[in-house]
Amino acid sequence: MPSFNLTLLVPESERSEYIERLERFAHPDLNLISEPSDITDVVLGTSSKIFAYLDNMPNLKWAQSTWAGVEIFNQINHPQFILTNAKGIFGHLMAEYVFGYLLFLEKDIQTKLNNQNQKIWDPKTTGNIRGKTIAILGVGSIGSEIARAAKFFGLKTKGFTYSSESSPDIDQYFHSLPLNAFFEDVDYVVNVLPNTASTQNLLNIDSFKLMPKNAVVINAGRGVAVDENALAKALNNGWLRAAILDVFKEEPLPMSSPLWEARNCYITSHTSAHTYIDDIFPIFTRNFEAFVEGYPMVNVVDLNKGY
Amino acid sequence: MPSFNLTLLVPESERSEYIERLERFAHPDLNLISEPSDITDVVLGTSSKIFAYLDNMPNLKWAQSTWAGVEIFNQINHPQFILTNAKGIFGHLMAEYVFGYLLFLEKDIQTKLNNQNQKIWDPKTTGNIRGKTIAILGVGSIGSEIARAAKFFGLKTKGFTYSSESSPDIDQYFHSLPLNAFFEDVDYVVNVLPNTASTQNLLNIDSFKLMPKNAVVINAGRGVAVDENALAKALNNGWLRAAILDVFKEEPLPMSSPLWEARNCYITSHTSAHTYIDDIFPIFTRNFEAFVEGYPMVNVVDLNKGY
Repeated sequence: MPSFNLTLLVPESERSEYIERLERFAHPDLNLISEPSDITDVVLGTSSKIFAYLDNMPNLKWAQSTWAGVEIFNQINHPQFILTNAKGIFGHLMAEYVFGYLLFLEKDIQTKLNNQNQKIWDPKTTGNIRGKTIAILGVGSIGSEIARAAKFFGLKTKGFTYSSESSPDIDQYFHSLPLNAFFEDVDYVVNVLPNTASTQNLLNIDSFKLMPKNAVVINAGRGVAVDENALAKALNNGWLRAAILDVFKEEPLPMSSPLWEARNCYITSHTSAHTYIDDIFPIFTRNFEAFVEGYPMVNVVDLNKGY
Repeated sequence: MPSFNLTLLVPESERSEYIERLERFAHPDLNLISEPSDITDVVLGTSSKIFAYLDNMPNLKWAQSTWAGVEIFNQINHPQFILTNAKGIFGHLMAEYVFGYLLFLEKDIQTKLNNQNQKIWDPKTTGNIRGKTIAILGVGSIGSEIARAAKFFGLKTKGFTYSSESSPDIDQYFHSLPLNAFFEDVDYVVNVLPNTASTQNLLNIDSFKLMPKNAVVINAGRGVAVDENALAKALNNGWLRAAILDVFKEEPLPMSSPLWEARNCYITSHTSAHTYIDDIFPIFTRNFEAFVEGYPMVNVVDLNKGY
């Protein structure tokens, strides 16, 4: 087995924790470096930081992103390096986010808190998620985990994918536009599609008009999928029950966005799924060993598809 | 098969829905009556309404409560009727309640809403329930379903029961007092024990001192299990992270209770589990047929044990 003596750059906001883990990993072929240069072989970090350094790393061989999202790399023609992402570690976190917010709505937690503040005993029965129908746009590793949680709680599930039907927890698959039948009789619509050309404004004014008036729209995929002005209009006009949004076309969401104050719009700041070192590190070490030994790597991104 | 011509009284707040279902059931032996009397054979209704009518129904043969709680009947010596309750239909509703509120806390939904109101982009990472430890007091049908949901979300589970170990989703069982080891290293303590003599103030000042400072106490069982003044003190002194309370010693919770304004105390008004006709009706019809035909009934309450 040849010695590679690979140099590794770690552009990550939690860099010190990554360095500590890498020092414990202590692979003989791994040499940590602190600046991007023409000797940088491998990079482990966020998609945006890796991309920002690309021009300074002309001999980069492999980039492991700590994010799922890699759309920033779409603009590169003929990349000369392997790109792997953090696919597969966010499903259970996304399920916590989606069902946390759906239960917050169904259990009417805000109303119960307001009544408590006035010492009002409020025996009004709340709603349930059981028996509801959830329509999931994108049934990859994240969508599958949302579907699994939905089935656990007794929901009915619909799934939209371009072709795959890999999750056993989807009652009914849809593969083509328009989405009329997909949006029919749904209670919740969750988008977890990646950012690709075909997801641009997939949720637009026509989609919102097709959905039932009691539908809740959740976007935890990519902001680009939602026509934001149309969504604000749909919420303010009562065409939808609520929206739960973690991702936006422009982040941070501009002060001027109508979504901040739209009716029943719940905004979080791209926090639905954090990359925990405990989750991403095994992917990096597995891929590192595969790269050194010449075995197939996991989570390799096809930049032609964009995910 | 003899004809019984049983009379049935339905003291329920949703009486009209029950009557409609009973008319569709249309059992030849069943005659609906509208007032309690010495000809009342069977009663289907809430525990409190059944109990209130008992003196007027001296020949009552069978009472089917639409509630799980039947402690009001404990004061009867040598009851001459069969009592069955609504056990088994609340587990998934309780799981929605418990995990709805735990996710509300961990996802810091209140802070995120407050920041949204000020149009503040708040990228602070929130907590997760995955990897936490939940200690469940009472692992019957409700506790088992909470344990099942906990395992689904990747929590560790401890269970306290007097002897049974029927749930496969409990990592570690505890059967005897004191609860020192039970409360060690827990993140969440959920009480779903029924109201019996041995559950009185089971959660008291000593229990709260034994729990870690980051523990969340949830009471969705019976109010009698919690020393309420001690809990308010523990919350206000920062000995606990939070409490989520659905049941109280006196309901409605008196205006004078210190719990209304205790630090990080979340109060709901005995709404964690509603009896849905779709859930209780199959129990009633199954038990009715068993009663008429002389087969064993389900959910028969042992009034000596109190559940």
